[in-house]
Parts: sequence; structure tokens; C-alpha cells
Amino acid sequence: MTRFFMTAGELTGSFLTLTGENAAHAKVLRLKVGEQVLVSDGEGRECLCTISHVSPGQVSLVVQEQREAASEAKVHVSVYMAFPKADKLEHVIRKATELGACEIVAFPSARSISRPDEKNLDKKLERWQKIARSASEQSGRGRIPQVVLLPSFQQALARGARTDMPLLFYENEQATTLQMALERTPWSTVSILTGPEGGLEEAEVQQAREMGFTVCTLGRRILRCETAPLCALSAVMYAAGEF
Amino acid sequence: MTRFFMTAGELTGSFLTLTGENAAHAKVLRLKVGEQVLVSDGEGRECLCTISHVSPGQVSLVVQEQREAASEAKVHVSVYMAFPKADKLEHVIRKATELGACEIVAFPSARSISRPDEKNLDKKLERWQKIARSASEQSGRGRIPQVVLLPSFQQALARGARTDMPLLFYENEQATTLQMALERTPWSTVSILTGPEGGLEEAEVQQAREMGFTVCTLGRRILRCETAPLCALSAVMYAAGEF
Repeated sequence: MTRFFMTAGELTGSFLTLTGENAAHAKVLRLKVGEQVLVSDGEGRECLCTISHVSPGQVSLVVQEQREAASEAKVHVSVYMAFPKADKLEHVIRKATELGACEIVAFPSARSISRPDEKNLDKKLERWQKIARSASEQSGRGRIPQVVLLPSFQQALARGARTDMPLLFYENEQATTLQMALERTPWSTVSILTGPEGGLEEAEVQQAREMGFTVCTLGRRILRCETAPLCALSAVMYAAGEF
Repeated sequence: MTRFFMTAGELTGSFLTLTGENAAHAKVLRLKVGEQVLVSDGEGRECLCTISHVSPGQVSLVVQEQREAASEAKVHVSVYMAFPKADKLEHVIRKATELGACEIVAFPSARSISRPDEKNLDKKLERWQKIARSASEQSGRGRIPQVVLLPSFQQALARGARTDMPLLFYENEQATTLQMALERTPWSTVSILTGPEGGLEEAEVQQAREMGFTVCTLGRRILRCETAPLCALSAVMYAAGEF
């Protein structure tokens, strides 16, 4: 079923109206009177609606049912990714959204080759948030993951350490597997932190350990920096009983 | 450590020589006398070598140790993918190689929009096999996954059903999770089959069931056709104790 997003403020009452980009999207899809659509506030609430009128630039909906979004994972996984080159970050935002991440946090680390320009940061963030929104629509998410930018590795560690299960994936770690880490304590919120193209430095990994991160391996093959978070996210969702 | 591939026939004796593309690659990496490299036959055997001479177009190596490739997964996972658009198939070949798949099998299904041209098939296959080779080098695989093209969905089912655990992922399946499927019987070989952009048809899913495939879900979000096999592969590798 087609899904649209509105702000929580707009998503009230028994009748809703799609306008702007939503109406344009409905036109592209040739939606017709009588068809059902989902309208979500992007924060976990959604309305099942029937199309009552279609006019140029406006689509009127009758709300059939208000409910909690059924497609959201119970586990909250935050993806912490050291800045890779821009196209890779966009790939990770898109795919992590599809795979059910609750937020994507990007930050610089010692070997980050590419860092977004300070002056274009607002525009970049807007673009990245738009990617998360469109991936949410396509994958039927009830919640749009927030894209968060942090100015330092230290701030990423401090924020990431607040979940039940802060994990850092490091290619030189061999002893501790993700399985071992996940079996240690119960968890319902997880942070998964991965490095940039050149990897994390040993000192950074040590810092993370001191902040409470468990350092673990993703297997004996060398994963590209954009593959590692998606592989880890898939495995955590599986381990959480999502599929 | 840098990894090169030779044929099993070339990988014999106490001295080896890198030539052609391998020598060119060594030059790009500025490898020097005394450095260690790995040379693999792409079939699971590898030699740990030291560089003894570097000349234009040739690099001589002294074999230190012959061994089984240490980076190969114990579980053999075959990725069966209904033809998506070409760039997506290339993405899946690259990423599935990184994630440790033992082969990637592509075949047409009812809703495949894109099928490779019969007359260019040899060239395409050569290109795809090259992608698998280069992803193997970069991820440190000891075995280059084979890319296999099959002419029909039926042949894909017949071939895929020969593993311990033939799995098909279907967006309309809700009851059976991958976890449930994997817990049923022991397994060391797995087939994971996924559909093209428009999904598999109900009749195709039924055919697969009759051939012994377990039909399962990848969660409540709609995954793109190129994301589904990589998500499933990551989860199976995790479940197999690879990380």
C-alpha cells in the first residue's frame, strides 16, 4: 500500500488532504477514488485512509483507522558511521532506513578522508534527511529515521554509549564475535559504530572501549566501510527476532 | 595483506611470478622487496609469499607457506537472484562476494523486467565473473565465487533445492521467519532465493514450496530486490557463527 508522510500536526481529524509533493506523488501513481493509502506522521503513528476526491494538486482522504505503525522494529538500532565519501553515506542512509534503523549518526574520525563542508552543512543535512524520508516511504516505514551530524568522534562515543548495547566493529578484532556480545546482557537499544574507508585507529578503538563499547568482529573477510554497518544491522535485526 | 589470484596450475613450486594484471596491480600498490603478499588459486588454497625481485612487468615471489585459505566461511551459501536490472545484479555480485557467498546464481522469473541479451551473454558473464574476482581480492577471499546463469526459474529451483536449506524470501509471507527455518534441521549448505523488482508471483512461490524450499519473511519492511539477498546473506552468516 502506498505510504505518505505528514507532520504529526497535520495528521489529525477524520479527513486529511494530500498537497504539494504528496499530491504530485499520488498523481504519478495514478491513485483513484476508493483506493486505500497509509498516511504516517513519521514518528510511529499512521492512518489507514480511503481516497474520496482527486483534484489537481489535492487528494482528499477519509480516515478509516488510526494506529501504531505496524512495520517498525521493536529493537531500536542507531547506526554510527564515521564520515565516508558522500555517495557512500547516502547509500548507508538509504539502506539502513530500509533495514529498519531508528537513526543514522555521522561524525568525523581520524582517518575520515571526506568531511562535509561546514558552510554547506545545513543543505547537506536537508538532503540526507530527504533520502531517509523517501527510503521510508518506499520501504513502508512508520518512522523516518533521523539523520544526526556530530562534530567529533568523542561526541559520537558519548552519545552512542547511552544505549543498552554499544558495539564497535573493528577489522583487527578476532576474539569477540557479535553473537558473543549480544548474548552477554538483555538489550532493546543498540548502537553500531563503524569506521571510514581507512578504518578506525587503534587509539580510537581503545577510547571506545573505555566508554563502554564492546569491540567485535564481522567475520574474516574485509568489508568495505559502506557494507559493514548494513551487514551488522541485518544481523542485529535477525538476532532481535525481527525475521 | 595484498592478495593476488592465479590459476591452481600456476600456484605450484617454491617460487612464483606475478605477471600481466597482477604485476600491474603490484606496481600501483608500490610493493617492495621484502614485503609479504598472499597468492590464492581462488579455490580455497593460498600461499604466503615474500617479494624477492621487482622488475617492470614481473614480480618474483618466494613461497613461505602453503595453506588452506583462512578467510573462507565454513557454511556454503548460494545466492539465487531473479534477474534485476543490470546495475543491481552487479551490486549484488560485488556485495555478496564481500559477505562470503560461495556462488551467485542469476535466472529469469515471471516479473523480471530486464534479462541479459542472449547474444551478449558470454561477454556479460565474463564481466560479472571479473567483478566477483576483484571483490574477492579486495575482501581477502580465498575462493572466488562463481557466477552462474540459468535459463529458467525451474532450473534455478531444481539446482537450489539440492542444498541442506533451500530458502525463498517472499514479502507476503508473515508466519515463518528465517530464524524458525534455520532452527528446523542442521545445515552446512544454504540457498537463498529472492525475486526481481516486481517480486515473485504466487504461483512461483508455490512451485518453490513443492520443490522443498522454505518460504520465509525478512521482516515487516519492504526491501528492495538488491537489498533482500544481502540482508539474508548477512543474517545466515551470523546464524552460522561466522561473526
